[in-house]
Amino acid sequence: MIERLIKAIDEKNAPVVVGLDPTLELIPDHIKEAAFKKCGENLDGAAEAIIEFNKRIIDKICDITPAVKPQIAMYERFGLPGLNAYKATIDYSHEKGLIVIGDVKRGDIGSTSEAYAEAHLGSVKIGEKEFIPFGEDFCTVNPYLGTDGVKPFVDVAKRRDKGIFVLVKTSNPSSGEFQDRKLNDPSNSGDETVLYETVGDMVEKWGEGTIKDGYSEVAAVIGCTYPEVGEKMRKRLPHVFILVPGYGAQGGTGEDLKVFFDEKGSGAIVNSSRGIIGAWKKDPYKSDFGGERFDEASRQALLDMIEDINKAIGR
Amino acid sequence: MIERLIKAIDEKNAPVVVGLDPTLELIPDHIKEAAFKKCGENLDGAAEAIIEFNKRIIDKICDITPAVKPQIAMYERFGLPGLNAYKATIDYSHEKGLIVIGDVKRGDIGSTSEAYAEAHLGSVKIGEKEFIPFGEDFCTVNPYLGTDGVKPFVDVAKRRDKGIFVLVKTSNPSSGEFQDRKLNDPSNSGDETVLYETVGDMVEKWGEGTIKDGYSEVAAVIGCTYPEVGEKMRKRLPHVFILVPGYGAQGGTGEDLKVFFDEKGSGAIVNSSRGIIGAWKKDPYKSDFGGERFDEASRQALLDMIEDINKAIGR
Repeated sequence: MIERLIKAIDEKNAPVVVGLDPTLELIPDHIKEAAFKKCGENLDGAAEAIIEFNKRIIDKICDITPAVKPQIAMYERFGLPGLNAYKATIDYSHEKGLIVIGDVKRGDIGSTSEAYAEAHLGSVKIGEKEFIPFGEDFCTVNPYLGTDGVKPFVDVAKRRDKGIFVLVKTSNPSSGEFQDRKLNDPSNSGDETVLYETVGDMVEKWGEGTIKDGYSEVAAVIGCTYPEVGEKMRKRLPHVFILVPGYGAQGGTGEDLKVFFDEKGSGAIVNSSRGIIGAWKKDPYKSDFGGERFDEASRQALLDMIEDINKAIGR
Repeated sequence: MIERLIKAIDEKNAPVVVGLDPTLELIPDHIKEAAFKKCGENLDGAAEAIIEFNKRIIDKICDITPAVKPQIAMYERFGLPGLNAYKATIDYSHEKGLIVIGDVKRGDIGSTSEAYAEAHLGSVKIGEKEFIPFGEDFCTVNPYLGTDGVKPFVDVAKRRDKGIFVLVKTSNPSSGEFQDRKLNDPSNSGDETVLYETVGDMVEKWGEGTIKDGYSEVAAVIGCTYPEVGEKMRKRLPHVFILVPGYGAQGGTGEDLKVFFDEKGSGAIVNSSRGIIGAWKKDPYKSDFGGERFDEASRQALLDMIEDINKAIGR
């Protein structure tokens, strides 16, 4: 799957992914009103509004973005109807030819991680038939439980030609509390490492044997709010593709991103969520498009983001 | 909520929680056949079988266990119908007076963690009304993202009189890969700590101001496969209630558990999943009860577990 992602990025000349992280605040009133009228002002209505909002945006960006990244928490918040909207978003994105990175940040012990892996990357066997529970192409994985928590995702990914992004260094302000702790371990033979480096080293190792087009199916998440980390890790993990969240709303800029890419301008994909799907609420897009044309605002914001990044990385 | 859990444990004299982690292999044929006949041999049929299986077990254990802990991965594996079974299990457990610990191991950055916290412990506002997405009483949380990933769960828990269990030291074989790493940090003033201790210290800190009956709403998960860790952490974290997985199928015994409890025999709750819900597949319960009476097998296995633990802790 990683080679498909790299190919899609090259074809569209856009190392970006759009985070589909809807909140009711980001959805224009006319979309919500129509959905509430159809399904009621309840969980079903909210889910209907999310589906319509996402579809309109997907329609306007599917020719310029290689991938979307729905954040499942934003759907789970609306219970079962919300998760139905999550699934509908995955399916519609696939219809439109997009690669889907499910931002689920799952992780558990062995057999439980296997259940999550089947849910998001694989299939479940009932009788003689296989069923696809959610069907993302990639999903994000939390590494805190170690190899036997991550390995089931790697195994399912290998079997089904899918990929994963393991959290290495997240974009939030307090990510350093644990991730930046210096490790004092005799096995390091005197070299000092920090936790995220050790996790990163494991990501490189977990991906062995899955390398295509220079990068492995086991990729990493490193927030663009920490460019010094990106620079170090890009060199340290030569086969690890990097998903870079934090552009735009979280404060990252195109210039910060350069270090996450390799010398060919590959090796990373940058996510923006609110900056794209909520573009209509902020100038200049607010005055240019407004709520009625929120989808065109998203397209323009995405074009501007792609230009900013490609300029920074000389692509 | 923690004081409710402690009270329920005392009333039933049972510091245990039953993990409702169904797989199709653990469900007897007659339950599956009836469900497939009703809903088809598909995701809906599997979900129907899970609901029936869980209800039958809940009916037989609700007078002797204070709590149940459904593992959401086992439901997510069956897609939307599976998650419907998860919700139905929570609702039925509540009907039967049980406390529900949602084993969801969620964790993300600020606003996204807030969405997860609303999903599992809180409510979501749509128009003027509040809706309860899943409605567990506690949920498990992954700490890898640090304070601003955990804090939204604490805030929602405080607001709604709920609680959380933060992963500190998990029961799986490779949990030590990251969790046991020694930290070399000048702020420790020379004292050597390992990562799970530092996470544990944060759990104690996050729980400040939420202490009831001696324990805080911010509790910890520490696997019973590591009793030496339990012993150390019980002393280190005086206000942290401990959820102890790994009893039975993962190899822990009653004797291993003693160290997780305080001198009053409180401060911890022990989980068993397959050992209870899959009891009918293993002797002595297999020959005594068999698949037809799987629910009675679960009850007997739970009674035996309670006796084993109470004997070990002198309760």
